[in-house]
Amino acid sequence: MRESDAIERLRRIATHPAALGLRDDAALLEGLVLTPDSMAEGVHFLPADPPASVGWKLVAVNLSDLAAKGATPVAALLSLTLSGDEARDMALIDGIEAACESYGLALIGGDTIALPAGAPRVLGLTAIGRAGTSTPLRSGARPGDHLWLVGTVGDSAAGLALLRADAAATGALVDIYRRPVPLLAAGQALAPHAHAMMDVSDGLLLDCRRLAQASNCTARIDLDSVPLSAAFIQSRGDDLAARIFAATGGDDYALIAALPPELDPLSLSLPPGTSIARIGTLAGQGDLLSLTSGGRPVELPEQLGFEHLGHQHRRNPPAPVADRG
Amino acid sequence: MRESDAIERLRRIATHPAALGLRDDAALLEGLVLTPDSMAEGVHFLPADPPASVGWKLVAVNLSDLAAKGATPVAALLSLTLSGDEARDMALIDGIEAACESYGLALIGGDTIALPAGAPRVLGLTAIGRAGTSTPLRSGARPGDHLWLVGTVGDSAAGLALLRADAAATGALVDIYRRPVPLLAAGQALAPHAHAMMDVSDGLLLDCRRLAQASNCTARIDLDSVPLSAAFIQSRGDDLAARIFAATGGDDYALIAALPPELDPLSLSLPPGTSIARIGTLAGQGDLLSLTSGGRPVELPEQLGFEHLGHQHRRNPPAPVADRG
Repeated sequence: MRESDAIERLRRIATHPAALGLRDDAALLEGLVLTPDSMAEGVHFLPADPPASVGWKLVAVNLSDLAAKGATPVAALLSLTLSGDEARDMALIDGIEAACESYGLALIGGDTIALPAGAPRVLGLTAIGRAGTSTPLRSGARPGDHLWLVGTVGDSAAGLALLRADAAATGALVDIYRRPVPLLAAGQALAPHAHAMMDVSDGLLLDCRRLAQASNCTARIDLDSVPLSAAFIQSRGDDLAARIFAATGGDDYALIAALPPELDPLSLSLPPGTSIARIGTLAGQGDLLSLTSGGRPVELPEQLGFEHLGHQHRRNPPAPVADRG
Repeated sequence: MRESDAIERLRRIATHPAALGLRDDAALLEGLVLTPDSMAEGVHFLPADPPASVGWKLVAVNLSDLAAKGATPVAALLSLTLSGDEARDMALIDGIEAACESYGLALIGGDTIALPAGAPRVLGLTAIGRAGTSTPLRSGARPGDHLWLVGTVGDSAAGLALLRADAAATGALVDIYRRPVPLLAAGQALAPHAHAMMDVSDGLLLDCRRLAQASNCTARIDLDSVPLSAAFIQSRGDDLAARIFAATGGDDYALIAALPPELDPLSLSLPPGTSIARIGTLAGQGDLLSLTSGGRPVELPEQLGFEHLGHQHRRNPPAPVADRG
């Protein structure tokens, strides 16, 4: 069974309105937004990743899903498998604690389990947030909406590439890969105005196509408008290849929002220093996703992101898993 | 790090009142009871277990925690790892669906992840229930309370022992091991009256000791009063050794409740056919846990249950893990 088949099957079961059709990486139950995410060693994090950053990331992944719904963090339930290495497990919990404290997420429950010796660890967290006055779904975009990107894309994928080349690599891109920052305040500011919103977890292009599809729209994206960080440009440049790398890399924790064309998001109370850029337009007809650069059409890359894994977040491309002892 | 150390560490972080000190296998947030539980292949279920029963059990484990708080099932969030075997994964989801339907639990969210090839699967579910007028904790028992057991113990452990001896074993005990029934209606009937309540997940004796400890009481249990099913007695007899096996085996999904001595639980509206028996008394002083049989003291067995794993549920004793392909 492919994961997309499993998700289709689960969607047929998940008929309760709170499930939102399992299309939003989050459920909406009685004013609470609930989002579960799991990360597996060797798939979503590398055995050599510092454990504190793995713990941080586990929390941040979930907070990014809350940000995409404009929710305010409330509480988290943790599902922890231990490595058997005390210092490592303690550092993992340090990272979880740091992220929870940073974003006001109270740890209210959890269980710990043992795995058979040598098994890759699986870490799970369910974050619970309080919904704001309105909760934008993926499916609410309308033809004519402008598509905005909050944050930059490509940094995390570039950081991972540096780590693949040199496990001791450091710097801003590695930091972003390891300690992503969920855009909670920006999400809360945009949510009351956004027709649709989601976080970019599996690749900007893939997630834009998902938003368009869920909304029965088409998305036209101008690759030249996709904001890149200075660190990204320094590492990989900003030519078309670099932009496509950034727009398909995933693991970004940026937000995409479909806003009515008359709204200037700079008029909203976004946190100081927020990067927000208009990257495209939603339309009613045509290809589900189309790209331009330099005013000309650009062919879609073969891989828009980690599509074959369905709606779930898969942060790291497959790689040989190092000895995990 | 031992799991008990990890849990102590997490308890220091989990200071929010909703966490209930991480002592109740459940959190209580705004009228909702939330309980996460994970099961790992080779630890909590056997690779050869029928996948539909694994799915059922994943749901039942969590519903038993809701039953222990007297909550009514509302919704569930699923975290699924797939085996890659389509028929097996479909059967697993069948079992999840059957249990959700049987107990009115709406699947409202979830994610699916891939694991590295050959890795044991880890399945997680967070169940959400609506709290009743009062939610009994582990910590509310008082000296003089009577200790009651709803359901029988030992059936599941006896079923597992049969399967260990013969993987093709069938019968009532195997069925109970594979398809436990959470005692939701009984939990709801008892909750308004119980000073303390919890489910028996890791062994009756261990869990009685936990309840006593959390309540600053001592527990005195009469092993002769522990109810055994006819199927259990047929398989293992009802002598002292059989009773100790039953009282330490775990994986029971029975409920223990500390009730005021003047309350006769048979006066409550328990579901027809509910097995409920007074198994002991809570007192203020003495050994945390003491046992009698035939009116005489019985020495505590070395293992009260799966203590070393802390508060989490560990259903299967360690065993060689069969080839999981």
